[in-house]
Amino acid sequence: MTTISAIDINCDMGESFGNWVMGRDDEMFPLITTANIACGFHAGDPTVMRRTVRAAKEHGIAVGAHPGYHDLEGFGRRRILLSPDEVAALLTYQIGALRAFLDTEDMPMHHVKPHGALYSYLRDDEAAGLAGARAVHALMPDTLVYWPAPAFGTVFCDELQQLGHTVVGDLYPDLSYDGNGTLVIKRKITGTDMDFALGQVKQFLKTGQVQTEDGTLVDMTAGSICVHGDGDHAVELAAAVRQTVLDSGVTVEAVAA
Amino acid sequence: MTTISAIDINCDMGESFGNWVMGRDDEMFPLITTANIACGFHAGDPTVMRRTVRAAKEHGIAVGAHPGYHDLEGFGRRRILLSPDEVAALLTYQIGALRAFLDTEDMPMHHVKPHGALYSYLRDDEAAGLAGARAVHALMPDTLVYWPAPAFGTVFCDELQQLGHTVVGDLYPDLSYDGNGTLVIKRKITGTDMDFALGQVKQFLKTGQVQTEDGTLVDMTAGSICVHGDGDHAVELAAAVRQTVLDSGVTVEAVAA
Amino acid sequence: MTTISAIDINCDMGESFGNWVMGRDDEMFPLITTANIACGFHAGDPTVMRRTVRAAKEHGIAVGAHPGYHDLEGFGRRRILLSPDEVAALLTYQIGALRAFLDTEDMPMHHVKPHGALYSYLRDDEAAGLAGARAVHALMPDTLVYWPAPAFGTVFCDELQQLGHTVVGDLYPDLSYDGNGTLVIKRKITGTDMDFALGQVKQFLKTGQVQTEDGTLVDMTAGSICVHGDGDHAVELAAAVRQTVLDSGVTVEAVAA
Amino acid sequence: MTTISAIDINCDMGESFGNWVMGRDDEMFPLITTANIACGFHAGDPTVMRRTVRAAKEHGIAVGAHPGYHDLEGFGRRRILLSPDEVAALLTYQIGALRAFLDTEDMPMHHVKPHGALYSYLRDDEAAGLAGARAVHALMPDTLVYWPAPAFGTVFCDELQQLGHTVVGDLYPDLSYDGNGTLVIKRKITGTDMDFALGQVKQFLKTGQVQTEDGTLVDMTAGSICVHGDGDHAVELAAAVRQTVLDSGVTVEAVAA
Repeated sequence: MTTISAIDINCDMGESFGNWVMGRDDEMFPLITTANIACGFHAGDPTVMRRTVRAAKEHGIAVGAHPGYHDLEGFGRRRILLSPDEVAALLTYQIGALRAFLDTEDMPMHHVKPHGALYSYLRDDEAAGLAGARAVHALMPDTLVYWPAPAFGTVFCDELQQLGHTVVGDLYPDLSYDGNGTLVIKRKITGTDMDFALGQVKQFLKTGQVQTEDGTLVDMTAGSICVHGDGDHAVELAAAVRQTVLDSGVTVEAVAA
Repeated sequence: MTTISAIDINCDMGESFGNWVMGRDDEMFPLITTANIACGFHAGDPTVMRRTVRAAKEHGIAVGAHPGYHDLEGFGRRRILLSPDEVAALLTYQIGALRAFLDTEDMPMHHVKPHGALYSYLRDDEAAGLAGARAVHALMPDTLVYWPAPAFGTVFCDELQQLGHTVVGDLYPDLSYDGNGTLVIKRKITGTDMDFALGQVKQFLKTGQVQTEDGTLVDMTAGSICVHGDGDHAVELAAAVRQTVLDSGVTVEAVAA
Repeated sequence: MTTISAIDINCDMGESFGNWVMGRDDEMFPLITTANIACGFHAGDPTVMRRTVRAAKEHGIAVGAHPGYHDLEGFGRRRILLSPDEVAALLTYQIGALRAFLDTEDMPMHHVKPHGALYSYLRDDEAAGLAGARAVHALMPDTLVYWPAPAFGTVFCDELQQLGHTVVGDLYPDLSYDGNGTLVIKRKITGTDMDFALGQVKQFLKTGQVQTEDGTLVDMTAGSICVHGDGDHAVELAAAVRQTVLDSGVTVEAVAA
Repeated sequence: MTTISAIDINCDMGESFGNWVMGRDDEMFPLITTANIACGFHAGDPTVMRRTVRAAKEHGIAVGAHPGYHDLEGFGRRRILLSPDEVAALLTYQIGALRAFLDTEDMPMHHVKPHGALYSYLRDDEAAGLAGARAVHALMPDTLVYWPAPAFGTVFCDELQQLGHTVVGDLYPDLSYDGNGTLVIKRKITGTDMDFALGQVKQFLKTGQVQTEDGTLVDMTAGSICVHGDGDHAVELAAAVRQTVLDSGVTVEAVAA
């Protein structure tokens, strides 16, 4: 029996690029406790990064790096078959760039959370995962790493834990899980999904488990809930998730770094 | 009467990009004391940056950031009319990215040297210069800044000095200076220019001055000599410059940070 | 006394990029007669271009190329000091790319309209303007060229007319004109500007003139009215402009190619 | 028994980018009959494309489009998992861009040859191959397509032939073939490989076959021989291949379009 007393709420932020706006960051900041800020490769640009870091500071939000493939046109969601060396260098570069904006605001780097197709490449390709984990560690030897719950057991996460990092499980309330406890990437959020998402949050907070698509219950070791700032009803869903957490008597706060 | 006892030799390095090679870095490292490493915007990419930082470490070379416009096609040599905010963010991003590669090798950031058309924009546009100087300072409050000698008196340099930075004058042996002591961008290096360049170095080391195109002598407060690794005879020129310095009884060493 | 019996309404379209959406193209197509489609350098990508060309075909809209600087981050609105050769090659490339999508839909290239800072560079830099005009002509020897009214007298337009092209004056209803009849780039559209814009359209349709900011009347030889698809009230303004034209007894139709 | 009386020699050209030079195009043009010109996505830029097309014209060389992934950093050699729609649009865009430079020089598009990892993606992914073939056909309904011999039987080639295109088999003299007649990507060219390459060319010209790595002979229906302009001894190898062809009494000429 779990007794979750506090939970983090994270959101991808700073995903605008030049004149193109993505997400309603201004409305999301009051709802979350940690922000994963895009680093200019799949989204974001230096001006957007600085603005987003400053906004996070004003709202007292802890900031993590959200590195992705160098693929603006694909928004980092198309797999690119990089060598392990390329994966490592790409992570060092992006995390370093974001850290510079944090430094100029006297803010720490709270965590690292890989984005989109880079996340799944780190999960699926062992050599890339190993190189990626070591690259994160070499630059940020103590940082938290966010990773979709409960999919530990990947080379990337194992190596990070071996090196002393805490891997924070990340719960996606609006996605369902298959029988293996693996996230199922689904259609767009609809009205129905709001109920589904809030139900999943309630169940998780009460039991530390979620019910998979085939009806079984799986343990979900998660320290954070991931909400989204883009999509038609994203802000509304995030607000409802937050309220559901509070109504469950659980504190909303960033994971301690 | 000047008595120069030691001088730094710097070179732009890491300007390859993907499969494209620029410069003969391997041959240049033994000839120089400081390397200005491209940061991925006008040249370089994450893999090239890491490789170049590691090579610098092996050779005991001090490394500075060489940020430029985000313009690979123009190699950072085409002026882009950025806002002061864009200039500042672009500097923070690139310097931060390079610093990450230095950190993972336990190397300090020795200096910052703006590249190409970004250099001349910082020189000519006062608002950009002011914003750029403050951006450099906010991230690297003590770093050296390299700047073509003797063109101090720009807002960028004044602001940096005001903030406590040392601006290191940079002598270009293969370029001539006009009556105002301003660098004249010239044709490609030829055999004749080798004599010119070595003569200019000798004169500078002996007198602290160079002779301008109209025959007058100008003081050249320079702590470093800039050589190049690309071009048909670049390595030969760099080797000859180094030998000329040594033959003058002057030590070749990095500027103390 | 002018008797305008028909007018074209044009709009920049296809300015989304990857996952980023710009403009409400679906709502704009029914309101316009010609579309200026971004060519992938300042906005648009191959997939967006194809989708936009197909949508234009379905709506019976004539399509022109809208080439810009290769600067996604700046949305083509930052001047880049290109050589005349670079300007020419950049135009050939982008117009050729868009023409390929038109060809596969059996649609003609109706016109060319330079975008943003490339437009003003072609206007202000004589060598660039000359090279640009010749590049357009070399590829599309008969095409119309859209250009802000009444600013003829530029090298770019003169050369095109000399080569046999028709330059179509473009009226911006929501912008005001200074005493020289030059467009004044203003703040964002507000409610007040709606009245201003519709008044300017009415005056133009009735008299062929607009009133400048200092109160004088200038002739405005315009064959098209430019509306916008982005901005909070853009579609509403475009719909009102179209209705104003119809209410004036003027036909809305594409300029004959 | 084959009696090859004439053969084409093709080479990837225009793979420089901005200030970065790739290949010795000037030395290669006199040795070849057809040039595959990069289209700005994996290499080349508008200025390079125009210059290369003009040089091809001066040398009387037939030009084909050499489209690749939009990945300059990876030189188009890293697989990117694009959707079939993205593959199609990417081909239309690049072929159209190159065709524009050909049009302005009154030159026809002789052929299309996919580059690097895009080639192997079209070969391996059936949906991408089908979409790609239709995209090529929609824009260039009669063009030749170059494809490594003897690997026909792919969806891409089948569909093109079905649509009436001629697929020209392409022989790589410096690469060996495995028992299935599939190209084996090997180490860098060395002195030994020169002998190997010339031997392979001779055997092919005499018998229409090559000997695979396991010693069997496979039929090689090839209308062109692919040489390279980059690499230390590339020009020397290309010259030797050409001389070998001539010494075999075979004419060197472009495939008839």
